[in-house]
Amino acid sequence: MKDIAVWGFSWVPPFAQGLVRDLRVRWALEEAGLPYESKWINADERTSEGYRRKHPFGVVPVIESDGQTMIESGAIIHAIAEQHEVLMPPDRRTETLAWMFAALNTVEPPLWNLFVIDQLQNDQAWTKLRRPGAVDEANARLAALSAWLEGREYLLESFTAADILMATTLRFLRHTNLVTEFLPLDKYLKRCEARPAFQAALRNQAAVYAHNTPVAA
Amino acid sequence: MKDIAVWGFSWVPPFAQGLVRDLRVRWALEEAGLPYESKWINADERTSEGYRRKHPFGVVPVIESDGQTMIESGAIIHAIAEQHEVLMPPDRRTETLAWMFAALNTVEPPLWNLFVIDQLQNDQAWTKLRRPGAVDEANARLAALSAWLEGREYLLESFTAADILMATTLRFLRHTNLVTEFLPLDKYLKRCEARPAFQAALRNQAAVYAHNTPVAA
Repeated sequence: MKDIAVWGFSWVPPFAQGLVRDLRVRWALEEAGLPYESKWINADERTSEGYRRKHPFGVVPVIESDGQTMIESGAIIHAIAEQHEVLMPPDRRTETLAWMFAALNTVEPPLWNLFVIDQLQNDQAWTKLRRPGAVDEANARLAALSAWLEGREYLLESFTAADILMATTLRFLRHTNLVTEFLPLDKYLKRCEARPAFQAALRNQAAVYAHNTPVAA
Repeated sequence: MKDIAVWGFSWVPPFAQGLVRDLRVRWALEEAGLPYESKWINADERTSEGYRRKHPFGVVPVIESDGQTMIESGAIIHAIAEQHEVLMPPDRRTETLAWMFAALNTVEPPLWNLFVIDQLQNDQAWTKLRRPGAVDEANARLAALSAWLEGREYLLESFTAADILMATTLRFLRHTNLVTEFLPLDKYLKRCEARPAFQAALRNQAAVYAHNTPVAA
C-alpha cells in the first residue's frame, strides 16, 4: 500500500474524541509502519454527494491507497493485516479473523448500545429504564471475554489485528467502570493502549480536534 | 473443507425461526455446494463448559471441519468464500469484504436494535419511548443501502458472500414494513431469498424446530 490517506472527522465532542473509528485504521497503519496522510470532513459533509460516492453510508473511516478507495474499519484493517504478518501471523490467520469478527459483531453491539444510552441519548427518558438491562447485556459479553483473557496477554499468542478491533471496542465503555471491574480486561486494555502505535494513532487523531476546537457559544 | 458440521439451536420461538445466524453459514455452504451435517444445542447448553470451549461467548454458529472449530458467522463465511469463487470473485475481493463488514458492523446494529425492541423486549415500558428514534436510525441505513441497490441486482456485479450477510441482516426487520417500503430493498431481499441455496438452508434449519416443537404449556 502506497500513498495512503485516511479520512476522519475534523471535530467531534470531547465524549467522542479518541473513539471515532478511523482510530482503528491509524493504529493498524502505525503497527505496520506505513506512513499515511490524514484527510478530514466535517459533520455536514458526511451526507454530501461527493462523500457518499466514497462511502455509501456517509460514515468514517474511508481509506484511499494507490488510487483505490476502501470502506469499513474491519475491511480496511483486514487488508492491511493481510500484507503485514505482524498483524496477522500466517499460522493464526483463522483465529485472527474469528476474533476480528467477534469484536465487531458479538462484542461491539451491546457495548455500543450502552454508549448510545449514556453518551448520545442521555437526555431521553427511556434511557433510565433501559440502562439496567443494557448493562447486563454488556456485562455478559465482558465476562466471557474476561474469562478468555485470563492468563493471556492478547487474544492470541501475540498482538494481532483482532486486538486493535477489540481494544477500540472496549474503549466505548471508558465512561463507566464496567471494563475496569474485570481485572483481566483492565490489564488487557491498558496493555493495548500502552503500545507506541496506539499512542501515535491517538495523537494524530487528537491533533485535528485540538486545532479545530469550536469557540464556546 | 471436509466433514463439515454446523451448530445451531435445537428450538427457538417462532419470531426467531429463520433468523438465527447459523442460517448464514448453511446458506453459504449450499451456495458452495458443500455437504454438511447439522448439530444442535438447546438454550441451556449454551453456557455449559463444554460448549464454551467451542465458543467463548456461548452463541451460534460454530462450524467444525477437518477437526478444526471455527466461530462467528462472518469469519466462517469468509473462510468458505475464500475457497469458493462463486462467493468471492477474485477480482472483487476487496469490495466483497467491504460489504461483508458493512452488513455486520454498519447495517446490522440499528436493525438488530429494532428487533430487540419489537421482539425481545416488547413487554418493557422503555421500548415505546425508544422506538421512534430507533426506527429513524434503521431507516437512515436502509435509505443509504436502497440508494446503492437502485439499478443493481446484488451489492456487486454478481451474488457474493456479502449478499448472504446483508440479506440475513435485512430479515431481522421482516416483522415490519421498513424494508418493503424501499422498492430496491424489497426486490433485492426477495431476489436473495428466491435462491435455491437460501431455500435449502432455511428448510434445513426449520426441520429441527418442527421436530422439536415444545408442547404448549
